[in-house]
Amino acid sequence: MKWYQQPCPTPDQYSRQLAREHQANLTKPAGSLGLLEDVAVNFAGWQSHPVPRLSKIAVRVFAADHGISRRGVSLFPPEVTVQMIRNFIEGGAAINILCKAINADFSVVNAGTFEQVPDVRGLTNLQLAYGSADFSQTCALSTELVERCLQAGRDEVDHLDCELFIAGEMGIGNTTSAAAIYAAMLNLSAREACGRGTGIDDATLTHKCEMVDHALKLHAAELNDPLSILRCIGGLEIAAICGAYLRCGQRGIPVLIDGFITTAAALLAVAIAPSLHPWLMAGHCSAEQAHQYALQKLELQPLLDLQMRLGEGSGATLAVQLLQAALSLHEQMATFTQATVSKGGAS
Amino acid sequence: MKWYQQPCPTPDQYSRQLAREHQANLTKPAGSLGLLEDVAVNFAGWQSHPVPRLSKIAVRVFAADHGISRRGVSLFPPEVTVQMIRNFIEGGAAINILCKAINADFSVVNAGTFEQVPDVRGLTNLQLAYGSADFSQTCALSTELVERCLQAGRDEVDHLDCELFIAGEMGIGNTTSAAAIYAAMLNLSAREACGRGTGIDDATLTHKCEMVDHALKLHAAELNDPLSILRCIGGLEIAAICGAYLRCGQRGIPVLIDGFITTAAALLAVAIAPSLHPWLMAGHCSAEQAHQYALQKLELQPLLDLQMRLGEGSGATLAVQLLQAALSLHEQMATFTQATVSKGGAS
Repeated sequence: MKWYQQPCPTPDQYSRQLAREHQANLTKPAGSLGLLEDVAVNFAGWQSHPVPRLSKIAVRVFAADHGISRRGVSLFPPEVTVQMIRNFIEGGAAINILCKAINADFSVVNAGTFEQVPDVRGLTNLQLAYGSADFSQTCALSTELVERCLQAGRDEVDHLDCELFIAGEMGIGNTTSAAAIYAAMLNLSAREACGRGTGIDDATLTHKCEMVDHALKLHAAELNDPLSILRCIGGLEIAAICGAYLRCGQRGIPVLIDGFITTAAALLAVAIAPSLHPWLMAGHCSAEQAHQYALQKLELQPLLDLQMRLGEGSGATLAVQLLQAALSLHEQMATFTQATVSKGGAS
Repeated sequence: MKWYQQPCPTPDQYSRQLAREHQANLTKPAGSLGLLEDVAVNFAGWQSHPVPRLSKIAVRVFAADHGISRRGVSLFPPEVTVQMIRNFIEGGAAINILCKAINADFSVVNAGTFEQVPDVRGLTNLQLAYGSADFSQTCALSTELVERCLQAGRDEVDHLDCELFIAGEMGIGNTTSAAAIYAAMLNLSAREACGRGTGIDDATLTHKCEMVDHALKLHAAELNDPLSILRCIGGLEIAAICGAYLRCGQRGIPVLIDGFITTAAALLAVAIAPSLHPWLMAGHCSAEQAHQYALQKLELQPLLDLQMRLGEGSGATLAVQLLQAALSLHEQMATFTQATVSKGGAS
């Protein structure tokens, strides 16, 4: 059995039950905090404690280039992947600002850009390959490279000391790879799976759909298990995130999934190890049209729906303060008895 | 012309335009921050500054009792209104915990409970009446009382030094009054306007609908303008919130509307002074079924949709950190030029 097929532990049901009972005693109508009540109960199960806390959050942006990006599927040229890595390191990107607000432990993992990136502080410069291959022509990755990417994600998580893990991604062309994965995993057509990514026009969208459609036909015989889907139409950063998610589950670290691309990694990870599922939450629903289908398949209710489509882990990181609010309410609200408030009758 | 009919100023279009242009230069695909970009642009217009800030937030919970609550429309007995006022003052309610997280200026206004409440610090104890009258039998308020409630809201806002105003409410039975207002303002049936409030069962919901339906027929001839709607089927706290919103617009203080009941006040306020509209935002969409119709009518897109139905200003207060994140991103992200990142092509 491969390391990533090892099962994840089950969250603590007794702590969940105690948390649910505590929620029922807080001075509010039963259920009136909606999803925030579920958040508190989930964290209780994850932390094996009826009054869970959340202060240590790790955010890792996994970056890589994609052979498909040379086929004109994006609004941005491939060199933007490396330029944005520099921006992350220098603290000028959206994810930097959002991490500051929640005091998150942030760094970047270069899984493999086309061009070498200089070693700098804050960058784990793995460069497992010089980008993936163009999956409209050949397999994106080799079997060995998929394994190495999964391990890279695992190793990153093995170094963490956190109560919540968020993966972000950066890679020009990676919505095309993710769309192909959605099509394969959710049985969607290329047209259903492809969206406008960074904001492409109609002609580019048509071209993107054709590329995905072509790739799905080219690799049709091999798209029947998650590892060969990663190999045929995946990407280095997507495989690394998949490995990171799997290790989080094994280590009992809850995962807050971000947007369209990271959810592709989550779909694959759950297919590899279904016991990962109880460790996943969805931070937001992306404006990328097919994202909602993946969330439905994963039976995850996103915390936010702000028409964001930026990636980098931004939607999930923005949602962290909602999780913290949920846990503060759970811990600090008065009970009916404490506050001498009459409890509601009938229900 | 009455004070509340005075027009509100128009947000500064030039600052809005500068903010929109600045957004287009930040290192992200154009539009990829979704609603957060609109938030930054709106605050720029409100503050007449292209780089707006948000740290001073005022939250006021307006409380009152409702004659209709004696007709068995709620899960909770009427005395809970006063009990919850005490809980707010002692800091044990959900809104207290949420205000702490954003360092909000919080206090409670007692517009009129059935029983007198002792004067304590943190409570503006107006007691404009001993609850409203049962609107299934007679008018809820007198013309004079409506005016006094509107003024009470105005006076509360006149004392504020803030960049954002949030009104919350507490009043057993007030979803019934709000539902009647929704029916009158949005031309809904009682069945469409009434929801489960704090969590009533089917039989109580049917009874609540009958009460609203009966009231709509009883007052039918008078439900043709917002002030007489307030008088016939409103409540003391709803009228006070309506006055507070109107004064916010006049003073150029943006309003983050909370849930089902405060949105009833917003519907009435906009009907009284349409120029208030550009000063309004919606914090969240409530689980109370008809809330979405009012948000659509007001053309407001809620920031959150977490199936909350608590009131107290909780949904809006929870959403404040999203507003602050939007402004931090706007202020702190690097531009394409600063970060030497290539700007996207076509669009």
